[in-house]
Amino acid sequence: MTRSLGGLLFRGVHSLTSIPAGRTQLGHLASGAAVRTVMTLPSFLSPKPRDFSLPNSSWGSEMLRLHEHYNSQCEGENEEGEKDGGEKDGGEKDGGFWLRLPSYNRSLKYATGGVYLSKIVQANARLFTRNIREQGAGFEYVVFVNKKEKKCVGIFQAGHLLEGPPGCVHGGAIATMIDTVTGTHASVVSRPVMTANLNINYRSPIPLGNTVLIESSLDSREGRKMFISCKVTSADGSKLHTEATALFLSVNFSHLLKGG
Amino acid sequence: MTRSLGGLLFRGVHSLTSIPAGRTQLGHLASGAAVRTVMTLPSFLSPKPRDFSLPNSSWGSEMLRLHEHYNSQCEGENEEGEKDGGEKDGGEKDGGFWLRLPSYNRSLKYATGGVYLSKIVQANARLFTRNIREQGAGFEYVVFVNKKEKKCVGIFQAGHLLEGPPGCVHGGAIATMIDTVTGTHASVVSRPVMTANLNINYRSPIPLGNTVLIESSLDSREGRKMFISCKVTSADGSKLHTEATALFLSVNFSHLLKGG
Repeated sequence: MTRSLGGLLFRGVHSLTSIPAGRTQLGHLASGAAVRTVMTLPSFLSPKPRDFSLPNSSWGSEMLRLHEHYNSQCEGENEEGEKDGGEKDGGEKDGGFWLRLPSYNRSLKYATGGVYLSKIVQANARLFTRNIREQGAGFEYVVFVNKKEKKCVGIFQAGHLLEGPPGCVHGGAIATMIDTVTGTHASVVSRPVMTANLNINYRSPIPLGNTVLIESSLDSREGRKMFISCKVTSADGSKLHTEATALFLSVNFSHLLKGG
Repeated sequence: MTRSLGGLLFRGVHSLTSIPAGRTQLGHLASGAAVRTVMTLPSFLSPKPRDFSLPNSSWGSEMLRLHEHYNSQCEGENEEGEKDGGEKDGGEKDGGFWLRLPSYNRSLKYATGGVYLSKIVQANARLFTRNIREQGAGFEYVVFVNKKEKKCVGIFQAGHLLEGPPGCVHGGAIATMIDTVTGTHASVVSRPVMTANLNINYRSPIPLGNTVLIESSLDSREGRKMFISCKVTSADGSKLHTEATALFLSVNFSHLLKGG
């Protein structure tokens, strides 16, 4: 069974520290932040949220192939919690295992075990990259992280509602996916982070409907700062679409939860 | 009557050269490109597209105030085509007049007088920034341009579906609006352009629901290159949210129309 981080992704703020609905602790929202215990809602009030990163019928063959490539190299746990990934024929065993990160369309609702923090969360707010429910129409993506190799990959299939140039993906949608993958990467290194800088070079347009690979590398870390670089290529890696560098700052969000 | 450029905005590619539905010519898609005449569809097949940049009931007081501020300084034409803007008490008469740019959720359909160019346009494709029909939920924005002062402004009200950090606008959504306003600006200078670089510094988060002002200035032009800088501030200008520079390349899209 594939293990995934019990994570959620704040975008702009990226966090991997959430607890799935039904659990009782917030955990550390930032390095050194106090653990905060919250009430657990009855299960009928805190249904398991939809994980948007799971394959669906809109995924094309390239998206499925890349997903399978990384998913098959994920560290596994059987139901007793015993790791079984070490026994697999994963091609990157020497480089460490990959973890698939789940992705929801809300943030703090899930981080707090299903409790809305009305002080800061609008009931109708939705994560920008998951705000379209129609499968395949918007951002279809999944992010994998490899902590040992300090790498992240995003697999992104661009839907027809992301148009910029005729027939191609909008530069803002590409920026959004770069921010998402590099920010998720930074959050794995340092818990919640905020985007401080994105510097994006657009080399060649991405046709609508195509699947691309977004590869993120941690270049350096200086105190609260994380410097990350990123490449967006065609699914087979042969064509470079976009290059970027990103700077993230780790932040402490515990104050946001005081009113919860 | 306020005059607007008969324009459409390709994003990533930005163009102000479209012809509203029902007209018969494509016009110059790029400097030096040949004018191409296309068939005009019967009017029932080419309804006037919705201009998403017009005020709607979701616009808050700051959005309406800023819109009125710039709209009142727009160069006007009466129905006989006679300019009347010169007689107005516009505060920026010395700096030239502003033009409000319309904004549609499709690109070439309108550019060609309502004819789909199936070779490059997916029937269901929609401009990324206009892909949500619910008023106020996504990107509410309008762009004004002042050619004499080489300035563009975007007024942007961020809906609840653009969330990144809890309660705040996604960094990718901010990048998208910066690309839109600066790219529109570049397209006014040089017809269709492609985004080559965006370098964005995020200074302070933008709360969901807030209206911000995006001001774009043309720094320099070197051949096909246009260097533009941009600031995103609170509606009253007191708070700096984001700063960016952008590089655009003018491009020739006439080849896209060969199959039309």
